[in-house]
Formats: sequence, C-alpha cells, structure tokens
Amino acid sequence: MRSFQRGVLDLRPVVLTPGVSRYAEGSVQVEFGHTKVLVTCSTEERVPPHLMGKGTGWVTAEYGMLPRATHSRSQREAAKGKQTGRTMEIQRLIGRSLRAAVDLSTLGTRTLTLDCDVLQADGGTRTASITGAYVALVLALRSLQKQGVISKMPKLTPMAAVSVGVVGGEVRVDLDYEEDSKADVDLNIVATGDGRMVEVQGTAEHQLFDRKTLDAMLDGGLAAIQQLVAAQAKVLE
Amino acid sequence: MRSFQRGVLDLRPVVLTPGVSRYAEGSVQVEFGHTKVLVTCSTEERVPPHLMGKGTGWVTAEYGMLPRATHSRSQREAAKGKQTGRTMEIQRLIGRSLRAAVDLSTLGTRTLTLDCDVLQADGGTRTASITGAYVALVLALRSLQKQGVISKMPKLTPMAAVSVGVVGGEVRVDLDYEEDSKADVDLNIVATGDGRMVEVQGTAEHQLFDRKTLDAMLDGGLAAIQQLVAAQAKVLE
Amino acid sequence: MRSFQRGVLDLRPVVLTPGVSRYAEGSVQVEFGHTKVLVTCSTEERVPPHLMGKGTGWVTAEYGMLPRATHSRSQREAAKGKQTGRTMEIQRLIGRSLRAAVDLSTLGTRTLTLDCDVLQADGGTRTASITGAYVALVLALRSLQKQGVISKMPKLTPMAAVSVGVVGGEVRVDLDYEEDSKADVDLNIVATGDGRMVEVQGTAEHQLFDRKTLDAMLDGGLAAIQQLVAAQAKVLE
Amino acid sequence: MRSFQRGVLDLRPVVLTPGVSRYAEGSVQVEFGHTKVLVTCSTEERVPPHLMGKGTGWVTAEYGMLPRATHSRSQREAAKGKQTGRTMEIQRLIGRSLRAAVDLSTLGTRTLTLDCDVLQADGGTRTASITGAYVALVLALRSLQKQGVISKMPKLTPMAAVSVGVVGGEVRVDLDYEEDSKADVDLNIVATGDGRMVEVQGTAEHQLFDRKTLDAMLDGGLAAIQQLVAAQAKVLE
Amino acid sequence: MRSFQRGVLDLRPVVLTPGVSRYAEGSVQVEFGHTKVLVTCSTEERVPPHLMGKGTGWVTAEYGMLPRATHSRSQREAAKGKQTGRTMEIQRLIGRSLRAAVDLSTLGTRTLTLDCDVLQADGGTRTASITGAYVALVLALRSLQKQGVISKMPKLTPMAAVSVGVVGGEVRVDLDYEEDSKADVDLNIVATGDGRMVEVQGTAEHQLFDRKTLDAMLDGGLAAIQQLVAAQAKVLE
Amino acid sequence: MRSFQRGVLDLRPVVLTPGVSRYAEGSVQVEFGHTKVLVTCSTEERVPPHLMGKGTGWVTAEYGMLPRATHSRSQREAAKGKQTGRTMEIQRLIGRSLRAAVDLSTLGTRTLTLDCDVLQADGGTRTASITGAYVALVLALRSLQKQGVISKMPKLTPMAAVSVGVVGGEVRVDLDYEEDSKADVDLNIVATGDGRMVEVQGTAEHQLFDRKTLDAMLDGGLAAIQQLVAAQAKVLE
Repeated sequence: MRSFQRGVLDLRPVVLTPGVSRYAEGSVQVEFGHTKVLVTCSTEERVPPHLMGKGTGWVTAEYGMLPRATHSRSQREAAKGKQTGRTMEIQRLIGRSLRAAVDLSTLGTRTLTLDCDVLQADGGTRTASITGAYVALVLALRSLQKQGVISKMPKLTPMAAVSVGVVGGEVRVDLDYEEDSKADVDLNIVATGDGRMVEVQGTAEHQLFDRKTLDAMLDGGLAAIQQLVAAQAKVLE
Repeated sequence: MRSFQRGVLDLRPVVLTPGVSRYAEGSVQVEFGHTKVLVTCSTEERVPPHLMGKGTGWVTAEYGMLPRATHSRSQREAAKGKQTGRTMEIQRLIGRSLRAAVDLSTLGTRTLTLDCDVLQADGGTRTASITGAYVALVLALRSLQKQGVISKMPKLTPMAAVSVGVVGGEVRVDLDYEEDSKADVDLNIVATGDGRMVEVQGTAEHQLFDRKTLDAMLDGGLAAIQQLVAAQAKVLE
Repeated sequence: MRSFQRGVLDLRPVVLTPGVSRYAEGSVQVEFGHTKVLVTCSTEERVPPHLMGKGTGWVTAEYGMLPRATHSRSQREAAKGKQTGRTMEIQRLIGRSLRAAVDLSTLGTRTLTLDCDVLQADGGTRTASITGAYVALVLALRSLQKQGVISKMPKLTPMAAVSVGVVGGEVRVDLDYEEDSKADVDLNIVATGDGRMVEVQGTAEHQLFDRKTLDAMLDGGLAAIQQLVAAQAKVLE
Repeated sequence: MRSFQRGVLDLRPVVLTPGVSRYAEGSVQVEFGHTKVLVTCSTEERVPPHLMGKGTGWVTAEYGMLPRATHSRSQREAAKGKQTGRTMEIQRLIGRSLRAAVDLSTLGTRTLTLDCDVLQADGGTRTASITGAYVALVLALRSLQKQGVISKMPKLTPMAAVSVGVVGGEVRVDLDYEEDSKADVDLNIVATGDGRMVEVQGTAEHQLFDRKTLDAMLDGGLAAIQQLVAAQAKVLE
Repeated sequence: MRSFQRGVLDLRPVVLTPGVSRYAEGSVQVEFGHTKVLVTCSTEERVPPHLMGKGTGWVTAEYGMLPRATHSRSQREAAKGKQTGRTMEIQRLIGRSLRAAVDLSTLGTRTLTLDCDVLQADGGTRTASITGAYVALVLALRSLQKQGVISKMPKLTPMAAVSVGVVGGEVRVDLDYEEDSKADVDLNIVATGDGRMVEVQGTAEHQLFDRKTLDAMLDGGLAAIQQLVAAQAKVLE
Repeated sequence: MRSFQRGVLDLRPVVLTPGVSRYAEGSVQVEFGHTKVLVTCSTEERVPPHLMGKGTGWVTAEYGMLPRATHSRSQREAAKGKQTGRTMEIQRLIGRSLRAAVDLSTLGTRTLTLDCDVLQADGGTRTASITGAYVALVLALRSLQKQGVISKMPKLTPMAAVSVGVVGGEVRVDLDYEEDSKADVDLNIVATGDGRMVEVQGTAEHQLFDRKTLDAMLDGGLAAIQQLVAAQAKVLE
C-alpha cells in the first residue's frame, strides 16, 4: 500500500500555506505529504549584468536543505564551503521553470529570487519547490502592485510540478522517499494545467524505458499537475 | 512602547513546539516573539578525532539563517562558499553552552549535533537557539534511552539564554531587532535558572558601560532566564 | 539552410577517432560537426566508499571545456576555484548515462572514470560526450581484458545521445550553437539503437511544448541515435 | 607558583616596543610575558561600502598566528584556505574594541586596519593584541597629523584588555597558556583605566560561575587594566 | 638509446600545427615528441586594473593539463577547487616569457591571453607551451591586423624554450618524461635564436651542479632553441 | 649610491639571530638590511603519503608575508582564502633548496617544516629565507640529537642564497626593493660556499641577457654566497 492510502496516480495531501514569512514580499510553505518546503520570493530593483539596459526583468532560484531534513544528517553546505551538484541542478531547474511562468519583458528592471529551503524531505522536494514557488512569486508580484511599485501584474502562466516513477512495474505519481529509492524510472514534469510542458526530465534508474512507459508516465503526471494548479489557484483566489 | 506591549524586563511571548521534525532524534521550534528557529538534535555513534579512545562524548552546534529570514535578503552562505564570522561566532557560542548542559563523560562515545536554523529573525536568534537547543538535546537523549541505546540519562544542567541591552538609557530584556539596532550596550547571558552563569558576553555598541549598568543588566537577564528555564521544564514534563 | 547542407532530421558529420591518447586505457576524439571532445576512460582498482564491500564496480564522469573552446573566452574553472552549475549538471548526466551502459555488478571492484574535455564547442557537447564516452569505455574494458585484469567483458548496452530542438517551428536534430541559441524547445535524449531510453531532458526555452511536439522530437531523436549507435559499432568492430 | 614569580592578581612583565615596522603608519611589538604580538596600523583613504558618503571613518582588525607560534605547529590558515572560527571571533573582538577607542565621526573618510600577528603564543594573545593595537592606532594617527593628512587628533578613549580566570579555586589575572588550559572560568575584559567597559566575555570552561565569582574577576581585571593603560600612556608620552 | 633514436643534443620531432581552433584569434597545436599542447591566444580590448590609463597592453598565460594527459590520472584542478603550485609556477613562467616577446607599449590597450592546455604529457610541457605560445601570439596579432583592429604589428622578439638535463652523467636536450624523472639536474631555458636569454631556471634534482655543467647545458639548450625558432619561423612564413 | 653605502658586489648587513622562538625545535631571525624573516623549523615524526615505508625523511617549507611587511598593505592570504602564485613559487623554491641541504635518506621517518614568515620586506625575502632556513634546520637537528631522538646528525651540505641583478647597466648583488623594482635582469642563486649550485633562476625583466652578463652575475652571486655561508657557520659554531 502507498503512503496515505492512496492509489497509484494519486498525489499525497498537498498543503499550501501562504504568507508564512513576515518579511518576504511573497512566501508559502508547501507540503507534499511529509515533504515541507519554505519558499520565499524576494524582489530587488536591479537585474544581473547580462540583462542591464535591456528593459527586461529576471527570475532566479536558490535551493537548500536543512542538514537534518532527511533520515540521517548530511553535512551543511555552508560549512563544507560548496553546494553539491544535486543542489545546483535543482536550483537551475526551479529557476528555468519559474522564468517560463512570468513574462520577463513585462516585469520591469527587477529580479525576483525564489529561495526554496527544505525543512523536511520525504521525496519530491524539487517538484514541491516549483509548485510552491509559483505561489510565492504571484504573492510577491501582488505585493509589489499593492505598494504601487508595479502598475499592473505581468502576464503569468500558472504551472506546477510533480514526480512520476515506475515502481514494481507500475506507474506511480508523486513518489515518497521510499518509493523513489526503489523506482526503476524517475520522471519530473513541470507543466501547465492544460498539459503544456516546461520541463521533462526522465531518468532510467535501474531499467531503460520505452515510449509506451514514457507516455503512461506523462499521462499520470499531467493529470496530477492539473490538480496541483487547481490547488494553487484556490490559495491565490 | 515595546513590541507585544511588554515592560522593560519582560520577555516576548515564548513558544517551544517540540517534535517538529519527523526524522531528528530531538527537535523543537522555538519562538521569541517573531524570531523563529528550527532546532534539531542529531546523534552519531562516534566522536571527533581529539576525543577518540577517551570514553567521553561530544556536543557541537551549527547555526544558519535562511536568506530571507531578515528584512532584506542576504546572500546564501552555501552559495558564497563560506560562513561569515558572525555565523561562526554564534555556533561556537551555542556549542560551548550546550556542552556545559550535559555531563560529557556520561554521554558515551557519541556526538550530539544541534542544528539551529533561523526561519525568521527579529533579534535574539542566538539566545532563542540556545534555549531551544537545550530542549532538543533532552528530547534526543530521551529518544536514545527509549531505544535502549543509552541505559540512563546523562547528568543534565537545565539552562537558557537571553539578550539584555541598554536602550534610551533603560535596561531592557529580550531585545527585538529594532531595539537591538539602536542599543548602546548589548549583553547575552547563558545561565541556569538559579543564576549560575555559562556565558556572559557584553559589548559597548555606542557607549561604554560601568559596573552598575552591568549589574542591572545581569539582574534583568538572570530573572528572565529563570522564566525561560521554567518554560523549557514545562515542555519537557 | 542548416550547417553542412543537411536536412532537419540529419546529424552533422560524426567522426569517432579511437586511441587518441597514448596513456589512457580507452580514448576517443568525438566530433559532431565542429564540436570536438576528447574523451578518455581511466580505470582504477577501487570503488567509492559507499560501494566498498559490495562487490560491484562504478562508472563516473567529469566534464570540462577549454577556456577558448567557444566563440569568446570563458574563465578557466580551475582558476575560478569552482565548477559551474552547468558543468556539474552535465557531468552528472554523463555519469548516469554510462552507468546504464554497463552492468556494474559484473565490473569487479573497480572504477571507470570518463573525462570529457571539450576542445571546440559548437552545440551538442554533452551529447557528443556521451556518444564518445561509450566508445572509450568499451575500449578501456577491452584493454583490461587483454591485460588479463578482467576475464570476460561485462554486459554492455550500446547507447548514444543527441539533441533535438524546435527552431522556427520545425523539429531539428543535432543543433549547432547558432540553432541552439534560438531554439524554442531543447531536448536531449540518451537511448539505445532500438529506442529504449536512458535519459530524456526537455526544456521550454521560449515557448511551452505540447505532447505532439514532444512526440515529434522523440521520433527524430531516436532515429538519429540509431545512426550514432551504428557509427559506434563500426569503430568498435 | 605562577610564572614570573607573580601574585594571583599580577600581570606578567609587559613590554611595548613602538615603531618596530619601517613602513606601517603605526606599529608596536607587545609582549605579555612570553606572548609576543606584532601590531601594525595601516591607513587607507577610503571606507567600506556601507559607510560611503556618511563622512565617517572606520577601524578594522585582522588577527593571525604564525604556524609555530605555539608548542606544536598548527596548519597555516593561508594554506588551508580559510580562517578558523577562533581567528574570526578574535579579530571581530579586536575590531569592535578599537572602534570604541576612537571617535569614528572625527576620523575623516579613512580606514585604519590593525594587523595583529602573533609571533609567539603563551596565553592572552587577544588581550595583548588589543592592548598593543591601541598604541599602534595612536601612533598611526600622530603620523597622519605630522604629515598634515589630518589637522587634529580625533577624540580617543585609552583602553586595554586582560584575561582573568579561576584556576584551582582562585581568581588569577593574565593567565599564561598552562593556566589557561586548566582554568574553570575564563574572562576577557576590555576597558578604560577608570573601569568603564567595552567588552566582557566570560565562559565557564569546566564549572559554572556565580555573581560573586564574576565580581571578583571583574575587580581583578579592571585593576590590571589600569596598569596596562598606564603602560600605554608611558610609551605614548 | 634515447626516444626517437636521437643524439644527446637532439630535439624530439617538433610539430607546429597552426589554426587548430575555429574560434581563437590565434592557435597552434605544438608537439615535442609525444607531448602535445593546444595553445590558443585570445584577445580582449581591456587591460588589468594596474595598467589602466597607461596606454600599454598586457600578455598573460594560463596552463592546464587534462586529467589523463599523464601515465596515471590526476585529479581535475577545477574539481579540487584550486590550481596546484606547479600549475601556478608554470603559467607565471609562460606569461613572463611571452611578455618579453612583444613590445607591450605598442600593443594598444588590450590583453592577449595564452591558454596552454596539455592534451598529452611526456616531459617538456612548459617548454613546448612557450614555443607554441609564441606562434599563437603572432597569429592572433596578424588576425587583429587583418581585421583592422591594429594598424601595424607590434615589435616582436622571436623566442622559444627547451629543457636540458644531466642524465647518467651526460648533458641531454629536450628530456622526455622517463629521462626527466631520473635527471640529476634540470634546466629550462627561454631564449631567442641568437642566444639572448629570457628565463633560465636550473634545479639540482639529486646532485649539485658546477659552472662547467651549467655552461654545457646552456650551450646545448641555446643551440636547440635556434632550431625551435627556425621551426616557428617556417610555420609563420 | 646603494643603500648602506656599499659597493655593487657587497651584501647588505647580514644578521642571523638564532633561537628566537621559545617553542620551535630550531629558529632564527634573518636580516638582509631592512628585510627581516622569522624562520622556524618544526619536526614531526611522520612523512607524506608518497614516502611512507621508504625509510626516508622529508623537508618542506611554507612562506608567508605579514600584510604590512611592505610599503603598502597587501591583503592577508588567509582572509582571501588562497595563497598567491608568487607565494607558492617561493615556498616550492625554499623546500627544494633545503631538501638538497640534507641527506634525506639519513633523516629517519620524519618531516622538517621550515616556516619562513617575512616581518619586513625590502627585497630579497626568498634569498634571506633560504639562508636563514639552513640555520634553523641545523639547529632543529641538533636539538633532536640532544634529546636523543636521532643518534647522529644527518649529512649536511651548507648552502645560502642571494639575488643578483643588472641595474643601470651594472651587475649588483643583494638588491633592495628599490633596486629590484628597476632591475633589467633579476637572478636568484642558491649554492654552496664552494660554488656548486642548487638553484639558478634568472629572469629578463625589461631586457634580454646574454651569456657574458649571466656569467658576471653568477660570479658576483657565488662570491656573495661564500660570505653568507661563512656567516651561517659562525652562528652555528
């Protein structure tokens, strides 16, 4: 039986708690089952050097995990003096995804930074981060509009992310840590509610996958993303 | 008027929420007003090289702040590739304080690591960390005892920490960020409920201080610590 | 017109020159048009700590680019003191792909390290690296067998990689730098000659993509991989 | 018997040798018994970014120890690639102390940097550093005045520092290394000759301390500081 | 017998292949026997801070070795996070040598960067690098002239470099790796074709050397350099 | 006129003060005019990994400069987090030189580390360091012999080092900073008193040099080294 007594294509309970930070322009705590990520969106009235003078804005992301977010403690990246390849890969993915969620040319000369810090990790931290980051970003933009910093909201493309895997021969959506560690194939999808994709990253963990399996995973993932986008919309109502 | 409508020698509302982590041997979320720190205590069955073969245990601490824990975003230490002097100073203070809270010789050949991660910072993050760390440490030891890893609890010395400052000529306890930034003197005290001290760190920020001022600050701080130790005891009941 | 006067689903000229290193156990220079990567495979009679005592082998990869492999010089990573996120992401992808190409349990207690150093970069450096790395790995294993270090070849799964993109509305295979920089969608596929996939990484660069587009890209990519696997086989004959 | 045949509240022989550097604006070699620190004060006609345009000056400090300043050789921090937490803590303490010694608003738009390099360490290196740094700073300011860079001396607050400890149950002033390593309580005080305090840092090493003990340590420390300030005055006559 | 059946004062076969990079302003692959170095010369229209406003140009060099350029794989410097002392020493030597090859005052406000990346190492990588770097530098200047960036070629001093050693009691020129590892004395010379020297670095490896030996080594080295300068001239014709 | 009213082939006043460190096995302060270097020799009963089990010893060196050893303050290497190429080059030179001064095979399984820290720099810091390091090394060995750690002294080759340059057309020995900065050629020689050489490093700073000039520089340098070796002998009597 899967955690939370759910079917193979069901998400874990999703909780989006907006406004958890007193200081950030936008913030949300996102939970996918036992996975908890604190996401803040910070705004800054300048852009990176390569965009200066182009009149466009920028969205970037950083990702971190508290040392004891996981079953056993891992070394603190700040103490080690560098971020792991996994961290870099994830924060690059989050950044790319969120840049596709907002029309940068209408953002003004400003940077939105999404900090995704994993408080507790039970699988799916990158997909929960992206799902939460969209909410934090919208909240930050609303706050800028309310303060009169921007006159109207930039064009937004609601999107969310979910993991899909093949475990014991069956396609399952939103894997928890235990499932993830024994999955044969692992796929992360970032997409809109109507099935247009931003990112698709599939990896054969122990077994190659064919087109049919990929199709089944995409079907399951895109259906789940529809629910996640609905959950985002509700919290942003 | 001070935040939370309190008197000069009053603490902000203190909340200690134990068991916030599903994985850590001991954990607590500690709040001093708007300051929120997530503290986990992780145990490991080995000691640092300088203690090998001595039959004694070790307690150490690490401290970090989420980039947007504060009014404006600061750079992520993991991304910068090094911890600031302030971070190092604070985690050394937490480690020393907690080593005084437990009889290391009765701890067995194991290390307890206290990770204090500031989710939101409104002054007093180091004193909240120490106050929470004591709780997380006791909970971790109880969990070891329950699992039969240790047969009896090591000898413990309950202790807590508070900041005291001179603001506008008056001695105030448990400064929030705004008070802290304009204080003339800043004192951090770590002590037991009956006034025995572990650490005293006083700094003249804009104005030297005499013995009388130091005495008044110590009086205020030790009285507040008595309340904090009582709050710890309650949560550990 | 595309570079090398080719059709939208055609590869650039592929050159695989085996044995370019006098010292490495296996080596190849791989060219996809103007992209040139020097790949060596080094063997070492030990495995990383997490595999010790498990009787299994390991395959890992490192990726680098000469500072002037590109149109304008980029800073040397060794001088900067750290590898970029892009480098880490690519070398992790190469490592994962090659681990799927060889049955690690039959490799013995040894590590094969694939160094992929880009001498000249005109798009597709990661896919050229993976395609070359498979050849270098097989050559290294043959050399071990010839020296009597291993008695028989481990089980191998021939595989190659290619990029596919949507440029100006049409699906194109094996993008060069100029095409890559204006592509709306970018997909990297690692797969076997008969269409079983190892890695699929698709990214919407300027425009989201639907299932139909993804399918067309997969069709084009898998057909191209068939040719690449044939080219590998020829050189390994 | 204590080193140098001295009583419990006596300092070790204090030697302040001004002008030891041919190049620095101000310099002194300070000796507390066998502890020897070379202190230089360098001036620069600019301030850190956070002070630009505020018309105020800045004082900062750096601290280092030669690898064989101690009984056994320690690794060179420059070779290790980072300063220890201890080094950072000490140089922050020296910097804060010296900023309290000079009225920054009358210093002009310039930075004074105090480099405290320990040639030989026998306990009390941070207190010797602060005591010497005050002398080097005054000498540097006099040299600026002589050169006409500043028209009059900024307002100065003479101050010095000493360590106090509880060893074998008795309060002792200016601990050498051997005493320091067995002290139950360790207190560092930075203060003026008339007992106004800049920094007080007390640590329970093996045993908590009560108010009475703290008072006795402060009495002993402040009396010793009076002598150190007199020694500074003599050398600055 | 020496490698390539040569006499004690003979060079290994020297191959200079110009134009190996499609993108660099100047490039050459230089081979001294089995040693192969890829050298590119990149130009940039600015100078380092210490030369700003002086109307002079700059020449600098960086050196690297592919991890498996040698008999056994060495750790990638980019992965380790720092360049070794050996690398730094060599790139400083190359930079100094090439700065002596071109009149910097006639170069304009620009920097030429010579990247010397060793693809295969069989002794003499630094001397091959310098010999190749002179060619790459001239090619880059010619390309700047052709594009009209500079109106006439700066004044050039053709130069090359060779290693000389004492092996088994005899002076030998252009040592390969095996000879180098057993040489008693090792000398690197950078000079013009008519015997004027730029750099002379002699090291007693296992045995001190007297004036007579030094003279014999200089004779052999300078004669070999004459041939190398001729080879450069031929390729630059 | 040269500093210290000396002739072109004269050394500055040389002062060797042995035993300046209370803790190091061997130590000396060496002065070449205004250049002052504190050299300690530390011993350790183990060797680096590549020598384990070979029954031979090792000699290594580290070099550093106090931030204000020079006319203007330079950044502290420990604070910057890395040693400069110049530092690495110098400490490698000192290490190689001193390894030639002692028969490593008779040293036992131990490492001697020479720390050369420049307190004041007026040119010639590397040659002063080597000259002092030989003295510190002998003193350390004598101390080991006295303690009975070694039964007899290893075979020693007394050696010293000096700089020579061409300034204003004339060959000068032991350049001070001002001469060094305007020299056309710069040569560092490490040799024995009877003219056998350990290291020769000549660099054309602004002007190439011919054999005749090199010979004149070697003549001057070797004569000066004879005097330095005599000064070492006197202090070691």
